[in-house]
Amino acid sequence: MGATDHDSFARRHIGTDDSAQARMLQALGVSDLEELLERAVPGTILLDPRTDDALGSGATEQEVLDELRGFARDITVRTSLLGEGYYGTFTPPVIQRNILENPAWYTAYTPYQPEISQGRLEALLTYQTMVAELTGMAIANSSMLDEATAAAEAMLLARRATRAKNPRFVVDADVFDATLAVVRGRAESVGIDLVVADLKDPAAADAALADGAFGVLVQVPAASGLVWDPQPVIEKIHAAKGLAIVAADLLSLTLLAPPGELGADVVVGTSQRFGVPMGFGGPHAGFMAVTQGLERQLPGRLVGVSQDAEGHPAFRLALQTREQHIRREKATSNICTAQVLLAVMAAMYAVYHGPEGLTRIARQVAARTADLAADLERNGFELVHRSFFDTLSVKVPGRAAELVDAFAEAGYLLRLVDEDTVRASLDETIDAERLDAIAALFEAFAPAEASGADAGDGQDEDAAYAAGETDALAEIGEGWPAELHRTSSFLTEPVFSSFHSETAMMRFLRRLADKDYALDRGMIPLGSCTMKLNAAAEMAAITWPEFSAPHPFSPAADVTGYLEMIDQLEQWLAAVTGYDTVSLQPNAGSQGEFAGLLAIRAYHVSRGESSRDVCLVPSSAHGTNAASAVLAGLRVVVVASDAHGNVDVEDLKQKIKDHGDELAAIMITYPSTHGVYEQEVRTICQLVHDAGGQVYVDGANLNAMVEVARPGEFGGDVSHLNLHKTFCIPHGGGGPGVGPVAAKAHLAPFLPGHPAMQEPQHFVAGSAPVAHGGAPVSQAPYGSPSILPIPWAYIRLMGAEGLRRATASAVLAANYVAHRLRDAFPILYTGENGLVAHECILDLRPFTARTGITVDDVAKRLIDYGFHAPTMSFPVAGTLMVEPTESEDLPEIDRFCEAMLAIAAEAEKVAAGEWPKDDNPLVNAPHTAASISVEEWTHPYSREVAVYPGVAASRGIDDGTYHSSEQMRIQSKYWPPVRRVDQAYGDRHLVCSCPPLDAYDAS
Amino acid sequence: MGATDHDSFARRHIGTDDSAQARMLQALGVSDLEELLERAVPGTILLDPRTDDALGSGATEQEVLDELRGFARDITVRTSLLGEGYYGTFTPPVIQRNILENPAWYTAYTPYQPEISQGRLEALLTYQTMVAELTGMAIANSSMLDEATAAAEAMLLARRATRAKNPRFVVDADVFDATLAVVRGRAESVGIDLVVADLKDPAAADAALADGAFGVLVQVPAASGLVWDPQPVIEKIHAAKGLAIVAADLLSLTLLAPPGELGADVVVGTSQRFGVPMGFGGPHAGFMAVTQGLERQLPGRLVGVSQDAEGHPAFRLALQTREQHIRREKATSNICTAQVLLAVMAAMYAVYHGPEGLTRIARQVAARTADLAADLERNGFELVHRSFFDTLSVKVPGRAAELVDAFAEAGYLLRLVDEDTVRASLDETIDAERLDAIAALFEAFAPAEASGADAGDGQDEDAAYAAGETDALAEIGEGWPAELHRTSSFLTEPVFSSFHSETAMMRFLRRLADKDYALDRGMIPLGSCTMKLNAAAEMAAITWPEFSAPHPFSPAADVTGYLEMIDQLEQWLAAVTGYDTVSLQPNAGSQGEFAGLLAIRAYHVSRGESSRDVCLVPSSAHGTNAASAVLAGLRVVVVASDAHGNVDVEDLKQKIKDHGDELAAIMITYPSTHGVYEQEVRTICQLVHDAGGQVYVDGANLNAMVEVARPGEFGGDVSHLNLHKTFCIPHGGGGPGVGPVAAKAHLAPFLPGHPAMQEPQHFVAGSAPVAHGGAPVSQAPYGSPSILPIPWAYIRLMGAEGLRRATASAVLAANYVAHRLRDAFPILYTGENGLVAHECILDLRPFTARTGITVDDVAKRLIDYGFHAPTMSFPVAGTLMVEPTESEDLPEIDRFCEAMLAIAAEAEKVAAGEWPKDDNPLVNAPHTAASISVEEWTHPYSREVAVYPGVAASRGIDDGTYHSSEQMRIQSKYWPPVRRVDQAYGDRHLVCSCPPLDAYDAS
Repeated sequence: MGATDHDSFARRHIGTDDSAQARMLQALGVSDLEELLERAVPGTILLDPRTDDALGSGATEQEVLDELRGFARDITVRTSLLGEGYYGTFTPPVIQRNILENPAWYTAYTPYQPEISQGRLEALLTYQTMVAELTGMAIANSSMLDEATAAAEAMLLARRATRAKNPRFVVDADVFDATLAVVRGRAESVGIDLVVADLKDPAAADAALADGAFGVLVQVPAASGLVWDPQPVIEKIHAAKGLAIVAADLLSLTLLAPPGELGADVVVGTSQRFGVPMGFGGPHAGFMAVTQGLERQLPGRLVGVSQDAEGHPAFRLALQTREQHIRREKATSNICTAQVLLAVMAAMYAVYHGPEGLTRIARQVAARTADLAADLERNGFELVHRSFFDTLSVKVPGRAAELVDAFAEAGYLLRLVDEDTVRASLDETIDAERLDAIAALFEAFAPAEASGADAGDGQDEDAAYAAGETDALAEIGEGWPAELHRTSSFLTEPVFSSFHSETAMMRFLRRLADKDYALDRGMIPLGSCTMKLNAAAEMAAITWPEFSAPHPFSPAADVTGYLEMIDQLEQWLAAVTGYDTVSLQPNAGSQGEFAGLLAIRAYHVSRGESSRDVCLVPSSAHGTNAASAVLAGLRVVVVASDAHGNVDVEDLKQKIKDHGDELAAIMITYPSTHGVYEQEVRTICQLVHDAGGQVYVDGANLNAMVEVARPGEFGGDVSHLNLHKTFCIPHGGGGPGVGPVAAKAHLAPFLPGHPAMQEPQHFVAGSAPVAHGGAPVSQAPYGSPSILPIPWAYIRLMGAEGLRRATASAVLAANYVAHRLRDAFPILYTGENGLVAHECILDLRPFTARTGITVDDVAKRLIDYGFHAPTMSFPVAGTLMVEPTESEDLPEIDRFCEAMLAIAAEAEKVAAGEWPKDDNPLVNAPHTAASISVEEWTHPYSREVAVYPGVAASRGIDDGTYHSSEQMRIQSKYWPPVRRVDQAYGDRHLVCSCPPLDAYDAS
Repeated sequence: MGATDHDSFARRHIGTDDSAQARMLQALGVSDLEELLERAVPGTILLDPRTDDALGSGATEQEVLDELRGFARDITVRTSLLGEGYYGTFTPPVIQRNILENPAWYTAYTPYQPEISQGRLEALLTYQTMVAELTGMAIANSSMLDEATAAAEAMLLARRATRAKNPRFVVDADVFDATLAVVRGRAESVGIDLVVADLKDPAAADAALADGAFGVLVQVPAASGLVWDPQPVIEKIHAAKGLAIVAADLLSLTLLAPPGELGADVVVGTSQRFGVPMGFGGPHAGFMAVTQGLERQLPGRLVGVSQDAEGHPAFRLALQTREQHIRREKATSNICTAQVLLAVMAAMYAVYHGPEGLTRIARQVAARTADLAADLERNGFELVHRSFFDTLSVKVPGRAAELVDAFAEAGYLLRLVDEDTVRASLDETIDAERLDAIAALFEAFAPAEASGADAGDGQDEDAAYAAGETDALAEIGEGWPAELHRTSSFLTEPVFSSFHSETAMMRFLRRLADKDYALDRGMIPLGSCTMKLNAAAEMAAITWPEFSAPHPFSPAADVTGYLEMIDQLEQWLAAVTGYDTVSLQPNAGSQGEFAGLLAIRAYHVSRGESSRDVCLVPSSAHGTNAASAVLAGLRVVVVASDAHGNVDVEDLKQKIKDHGDELAAIMITYPSTHGVYEQEVRTICQLVHDAGGQVYVDGANLNAMVEVARPGEFGGDVSHLNLHKTFCIPHGGGGPGVGPVAAKAHLAPFLPGHPAMQEPQHFVAGSAPVAHGGAPVSQAPYGSPSILPIPWAYIRLMGAEGLRRATASAVLAANYVAHRLRDAFPILYTGENGLVAHECILDLRPFTARTGITVDDVAKRLIDYGFHAPTMSFPVAGTLMVEPTESEDLPEIDRFCEAMLAIAAEAEKVAAGEWPKDDNPLVNAPHTAASISVEEWTHPYSREVAVYPGVAASRGIDDGTYHSSEQMRIQSKYWPPVRRVDQAYGDRHLVCSCPPLDAYDAS
């Protein structure tokens, strides 16, 4: 690699410039980046710099934005009436600007460090409160990946909670197609016997439940739009000792009786229509709420209220289930991601509108739907049912397709149900003018015998709605079962009535953001999570209407620009990984993993080897690996690691031998979760292949491989990638994510398909396109397309050379940190040349033994120094795993190293007895500003040492750059809002919705 | 006014909802908003609620964004080669997102309170450093409104500084047309004798300077693109004891010898091409730099380094010249605004690129220009000159218009100089592909005898540039005079070499923003400055390419959408003010004022009454009033105010009588600068009209009149408005602003015109459109069009009813504050019913006399409470003027009142001797976090009282809303980065560029 091109984006993305890298290389005794790669990466897998043009050279930001605008020009956004879980919504600009376009929100990490995440934790608690109250349930989690996977997870929850022997699960026929497809795929993989029946028909319901079931799934309003009473079905499943899962629409619940009041045990759905654009399918936040007693069965993340060291209320993740905590082979769900950013947006939409505002929107939607219904009936149309909220199914015998075409011509997407039926779902964006247009479009197809009455004059009605006279006009819910009208109040907490002006909202969002530490403040050196730059140019397109507005089931012709970008991204990712085909559908790494393992399983079955169901997992693996294997119907067998943290090849041979023809696959992570490029990776792959198994390479650490090694070339059959780690999709405070699955050609037919996929044929290297034919793992055909411009832009900006440089720079940074810190904290694992890959594990165990200072103390003390802690106690308890990434600059990396060394020195004072073990700046960390304002300071260290330790530390390293000067550090210190949070207290006293006001008040 | 419509934007814009307003009205003993208006506003001017549809009813945010997209569709953005001071530039996305789209930057006020403005002051100091070093001058101010007005101001500075009797000023013929037009207009108004000559011709220069002159203005590179040596001219004007003003191009100065090294006394120009989009003309930051000895002559704002109470370096406005400080009738400049937001962007562009990056961009532009020149010559074209930086003048005998058309067809705007000549200016956006296209377009018009050599292959050259081989390829500056090559270094301060990665840049911008207090944190209750909500929906369109990209001299057909929006906004503003016609050209209130007075003057002259040159100005007026009058060639005569702060009608009669036929105008502010609706305003207008004078109504306080009273109806002939006060353009930390001038029909022909105005005919109510024919007051025909979507959106969102409600709500808020605080601080002026208008003056003089606590102490103590201070000592020394605006909600207003009352109580402790006069939380305010971290606390009040006084204050008023709870306040406290700034120290030790690093370091 030569010097960085001055005009290249790589220069902006990579934090260390040529002169900084020269200094770092010198410290390591390495001459240049290429030599570093040669020494760190096994020669058996190290690639030569790319000479082909699969990726091309990097483009400028200007060129990339122009090219994205080109895609956008090939996208036609028509007003969607398609429904099916996706609705037009108006994102309040104050929310778009101050959350979705604000790095303080989108560059934040998952709130595992609660002291520096109080803002988003509070927002998520608000989300949970909103969902719990609207659904009438005891408790809701902090979001699911989407509605369909929430339904699938609910099914698994029901089986878990009921400890059912009976494998039967019953689904009402009138649920969304995508929900049914996802649930069916999940059921098949774990041997659940899925029955679909028309549960509204008592006889059919009785028949379906005759042999019992561990649960039912119903939807209200149903996919057809029907508002029906699920109570009889709920009673029946309860009688069978099963659980009732209700899929519900949040907006409708302002008017409809909440499922919790109807007896539901689990409620699932989406909060997309609460201000989150459809984005051609995602991302948006699904939800799950449960009744009392089921809270400890909830998958995903749950925010709860606890208290800090001073007894003040503080938020944190309750009942923590994260990657590292998922219980390997005993796992029952592999979900460890939420859709935080989107859940925050939905929660703030509710905060901004308040209960009255939400109700008013719902009433307007319902009234306009009723208005349209009345109009249609006046014109002689037959409605399939007259009990609706926002969706009408309309009979147009023999003319449905024609009608759909006419609507498209006029700029509307109408759903074709069958040749005689169309369906229209209304939403808050259908104003009076659009309603008139829709009515007029229908009218042209009115049955001949119709009265020809005028379409309603929307303008007048609009004025009437605005004047609060909607009741008089439209008979909302006149067709509903009487008991389905909501009578209970909701969202009565102050947060839902305090921020209704834009000024108040803007300030509330700023106050929340200011409590948090994100990449816009400083380094987040999290091992295995790759918190790198999320460049503004990469983020720009996601809020352009062309990318944010399309419905996921838009006709292919409307989204050619989108499909082209997706196809190109698939090709690039295949080229980067050395695989042949890529599915972008999975919404998280866990889903990609699941999809990849399903493909392996289906491949074996397709070859008549269905007995192959053993999945080998090294002991050092992420917990999700095993969990995904279980969900894919595989049996997990653990392979030992050797003293260097590598797969124990002898044990592997033994396990292969033990399981013979039962061997389905091995799951390895590369570089290993220990942060090392294993030398033997080709051997390992070969051994498994020779035994008829497939090789799953976990892509969590791909940031150490891009353009340096390709899993598809050194033995992998399939991998999932994490576009939110390696390819710059921001973490969003804990979601969204995109976890594509990449595979060799032989697995292509088994990658996730989708009934509504616009282009089922996907790129396969060296062959004609192949249809991905597996079960869908997401509600939308392409998962979360609206954030795909981010990785597309990243790859386009960097080009092959830039990507290789980024990888090498990440490896350089990790080795530099290891080099600087190894005397204070031994590096637990290194490769043969004493080098690590893109991260390093600091072994704190000797340090802790000597000083009594724990990993936790160090992590919290780092907050006082202005840092986010590295990954704690993973993969080895008592260690910290540091991944600086390529985006940090040398002053920040040095500042981090100096902070760690300063903390080590502080700990020695404890060891030396200078500070008591139970009263020192480490065990008392973090320190708030309020904590040093007290009259009496009783600690053996000063207030300055408490809160400005970083300044002292930086004195020694001031290298003449502007931003490391002492005064700058003092003036721009990040202040945590709370002291150390008591985790155990919170789990003992589980509170997962907004506390009453006085809980916040320390007076 | 009925209840607020739940769906209306007015509900989001107005902070107080119906129930809050009911409480506030009750406190005042008024039944509703209409009664409040009836009691506060004189019946002689109070309007009935509007029934016509000039403004219409409010639209939703969704509708407004759709309508703006409609305008955008009618704008064609072609690649501009037009030059003339406006160049394509690529705004780094990290700057766009984190400054231009970030309310922490754009909602900030002018940094009069330095303690809470350190971030933008530092950014402005960086701007000054950048300008000073690139131009080679001793000192630069913190920006000018644009290049043309900077040139005009430089001319006035030269006259001032030389104390010239000789009224002659010489301008080189080869300056931008717009510069010449603006300078000419200014010269005419103050009797300067302008001479235009070809100063490159020694004989012509000698002739022009034969009778001496107080200054010359030359431009290098010249408008024609010529790079020439101005030293002979500079020597000649110096010999004549005049000053040399050089207009320069900042980008070229990375390669060209800086004017400071050539002997220039003043350098002016624009920093637009440093990352600020052209925006169809603006806003962008002009600049002015001067040589040592002239710094105290600089107009506008100057940031300097001083120190705080602890001796730490701190930034603040030096040699403060603000509205209130402009010296009335002795004024020599009325500039009191800068283009802060745009100057910050330009400074950060320089920080991001660094000196090498800027040089590289300049070399690339110059090399491509040289390349194009070589190509043209190969093809037989004749160049007008061969000494160029980025601009070529090309001879195309008889075919210039045809060529311009061909370029337009291909998507490029080429400048038509005359029928035989075209001109092309290149910029950083002209990449190899575009360069090829341009060369090819020219080639088609190559003279017949040309060799037909191939156009250069831009692709190869691009690779060569990228590889750093530009020198080999293109002979940059081969035609330049030898001494014009720059040899001196520049931008060597650390700030220009520390933030070149996007991560580093993002964090630097966040750290700067975090130091500042803007509307996104809390109330900024500035009397006469109307710091109201700048809604995200209003801001959205300004960064859409259609609004941000057009060149100001684009053909009318390309910008029909823009012109339509501008026309509609003119009509709406005319309707709101009761005038007939509006010019949106002035870039600040001061420019609007100047334009309005010029119109009055021209009107009198047109009627043969050129003797009318006396302008009456009440003693309470803004200083700018008098300054503008002087600049417009008027003599200022002061009219007394009575005890109530109103114009003394008897004195007015006397002054009218004194000046008889010399009376040109009166300038009044309404409501008065004392915050009161004067009863006698109609009488005052009538008296002046009867005497043949015109009435100028200063629109500074228009926020108290919108849809409640109309200056054009109660007697005004002309007003300027402040779209950045009343119509929601954000203050941007001290600019941009838009100060339209609105006038009755008889003045329409005299409003500002412009030689390049696309549509000279402007709307005139009740008549056919009329051409605005006055001298231009801005460089661009429509001033700052790219921010006009903001007021357009505001008016469209609010509608007539919403605007009236906003005005009434602003009046309610001011009266509520007056009511709550009047016992502690007497209200200095009220109207006949004891009511104020939209602001109130708190008289602190008795309080100060009793307690020794000054206005300054209160203002700084408010920072500890989390507030920006009200306006200090204007219009009356020893007072605070409070304008809460309609956008603040009741909890924030109450929190402010409680803070003021708590401060009053604190002062009483000082009066009572409980705290010493020289050591109490008031005189020591503000307190930083660092200040309470010290080991020894020696003050007689506690650390908690120092930094958390607001919490104690809020205890008493916690009204159950979420965000007033104590814990919230503690956790989200705004911390000022410095203690009280020593103003006098800074003026004694004037440092106005970036200090060396050690100045920041307190160690």
